[in-house]
Amino acid sequence: MDNFQFTIVKKDGKSSARVGVIKTPHGEVNTPIFMPVGTQASVKTLSNEDLKEIGAEIILGNTYHLYLRPGHELVKRAGGLHKFMSWDRPILTDSGGFQVFSLNSLTKITEEGVRFQSHLDGSYHMFTPEKVMEIQHALGADIIMALDEPVLYPCSEEQASTANRRTVNWAERCLSAHNELRDNESKQPPALFGIIQGGTYPELRKASAEALLKLGFPGYAIGGLSLGEPKSATWEMVELCTDVVPQEKPRYLMGVGTPEDILEAISLGVDMFDCVLPTRNARNASLFTRFGKLIIKNSQYAEDFSPVDPECECSTCRNYTRAYLRHLFNTGEISALRLATVHSLHFYMDLMKWARKAILEDRFREWKEEFLSRYQTDQTNEENQMENT
Amino acid sequence: MDNFQFTIVKKDGKSSARVGVIKTPHGEVNTPIFMPVGTQASVKTLSNEDLKEIGAEIILGNTYHLYLRPGHELVKRAGGLHKFMSWDRPILTDSGGFQVFSLNSLTKITEEGVRFQSHLDGSYHMFTPEKVMEIQHALGADIIMALDEPVLYPCSEEQASTANRRTVNWAERCLSAHNELRDNESKQPPALFGIIQGGTYPELRKASAEALLKLGFPGYAIGGLSLGEPKSATWEMVELCTDVVPQEKPRYLMGVGTPEDILEAISLGVDMFDCVLPTRNARNASLFTRFGKLIIKNSQYAEDFSPVDPECECSTCRNYTRAYLRHLFNTGEISALRLATVHSLHFYMDLMKWARKAILEDRFREWKEEFLSRYQTDQTNEENQMENT
Repeated sequence: MDNFQFTIVKKDGKSSARVGVIKTPHGEVNTPIFMPVGTQASVKTLSNEDLKEIGAEIILGNTYHLYLRPGHELVKRAGGLHKFMSWDRPILTDSGGFQVFSLNSLTKITEEGVRFQSHLDGSYHMFTPEKVMEIQHALGADIIMALDEPVLYPCSEEQASTANRRTVNWAERCLSAHNELRDNESKQPPALFGIIQGGTYPELRKASAEALLKLGFPGYAIGGLSLGEPKSATWEMVELCTDVVPQEKPRYLMGVGTPEDILEAISLGVDMFDCVLPTRNARNASLFTRFGKLIIKNSQYAEDFSPVDPECECSTCRNYTRAYLRHLFNTGEISALRLATVHSLHFYMDLMKWARKAILEDRFREWKEEFLSRYQTDQTNEENQMENT
Repeated sequence: MDNFQFTIVKKDGKSSARVGVIKTPHGEVNTPIFMPVGTQASVKTLSNEDLKEIGAEIILGNTYHLYLRPGHELVKRAGGLHKFMSWDRPILTDSGGFQVFSLNSLTKITEEGVRFQSHLDGSYHMFTPEKVMEIQHALGADIIMALDEPVLYPCSEEQASTANRRTVNWAERCLSAHNELRDNESKQPPALFGIIQGGTYPELRKASAEALLKLGFPGYAIGGLSLGEPKSATWEMVELCTDVVPQEKPRYLMGVGTPEDILEAISLGVDMFDCVLPTRNARNASLFTRFGKLIIKNSQYAEDFSPVDPECECSTCRNYTRAYLRHLFNTGEISALRLATVHSLHFYMDLMKWARKAILEDRFREWKEEFLSRYQTDQTNEENQMENT
């Protein structure tokens, strides 16, 4: 398909990590990639110019939120999500499934789909595979996701199995609806990814992956992880999925995560990531740096006139000091949230650049150890300092 | 004095408006000028890069707030306010007097100074003329203000007279303290402005202005206006002050105001302005445009895919639509506050540019009428639309 192409540029010799390029109607994306989360057609606190300066290559939009506000039909009349928000680089929209389940207590799941109440006004809505395809085609992202039924952790094998079967059925219906919509569109259509579920049950994960592979998607997401299960289970499931999904397909680990987790997943062959962690933590005055987390409100920074991270080249570090950023947070200035977000997202973009460089140089594992030893040692110091503050 | 120089470039033929240049240690300022308010060492929601893109030539800092947080001594150790907040253009700090009176109910005024409780933690503090000079020298702005005692409207002639006498006495003590501090400083010292008070009593205003003129300041502020008095009284007082203050001295009308009021004051010979109106209103989704105010949350903008002001060249109008900005406000996105602030401050900067151009072309009055007829007509439309929404 000419609207989506994934090319592997280099495989690491000592891990499953790889560097690749995804081609979309709105340009290329270098993988492994981190996608900043733009829930409501906006990466919180930032403008598009900020995102470009940070080096964001692709952002994520949330179907559930955009469906409720401003509504996918309004977005379609604006000319699609890219035009509505004036972002001309690639966008991925999720299926809305995860938000329906996590933001609503009163959901009713049937074979048909999932009925839910809006978290905004209590109004009733129904997401079916067909509806979710209609919404995402109206939004017009470059990559869209099939409707899935994630299960929480812990969950019984029976529950996971039922959800699994439904996820595969829904994926098939998504594919049909997607193909039909695609054939009726004049502009370049989006690429539809399937989502592998199966909880932490290896057989279910494998079955889910294999069933989706039979349907045939240009890319595969790994869903339902990082929801409280032990790390060993997370990595067992990720490895199982990346083993089953063919090398030439991009793998997207949804909602992950910390720098440590992202690097581990890259070493297992994951290509795409999204997470609210860098942006949400930044708004709570917790910044990511190559020395670990930095809690900018700590009193130790009151007269620290050095940048957040002296090695960082983001506009916050180039222009402002720790003392000034601390002052902005302490006085409740809104600009603090943006300056901190700029820094932490820039760090995540740097992290992906460093990872890609290390893979290209065939030294991903070594680099990962070097990075983590500096990152985690200093993070421990930071945590000790916090306790002493 | 080489640290401050005011030169009149052109006087308007049919009004008292004039174009001038103020030279400060941090560069030149073209008058008439509007100074965005950076209360806590930050113009709310904006970064310094934003301010420069908007074209801000000088900003204002609040002595009261900076004294409480982060403290003037910390700012001094950072190398002064310019270094602390990384702003390399001119800064004016106010005296803190107005904030002491407006943010605190329990102030005690004596000849010595004013005792007040912090609005943050209730702690007791004392501002004397000498203390306020010490604080402002520590902050290191380019233009600083003498401590004054503003009176509210309405206020008896006796109250106004007492406050007036104190304001002149304090101005004299400020001048002595300022000269002493100035002589002990190695870097270029700030210029100290006196503040004319006197409520709405012509004789008191005149007495205040004449007494301050005798003391001799490089510039004069007109304080205690736009506090609820009738507009006719405002303009009577402003005209009285600009008549008494010699032509070669800059005049600063504190806390004013709306586009209409600023233009009226310019025509009476005022050179400098500051006000929270454009920034505060923007954060409340009310934007200034050349067609009057635009209430961006109004439903009429839900599918309006044109810029806030099609003739505006600010980054918000170049990049985003009314529909998108409305969506950001409606969904509570923080970025909305910044995008709106960028636009409204840019409009105020444009307004001053247009005013200067009109004065240089000797057609200030004509231009003012043209501008207001478009601004106020459409504003009326807007208000009618609001009522119908």
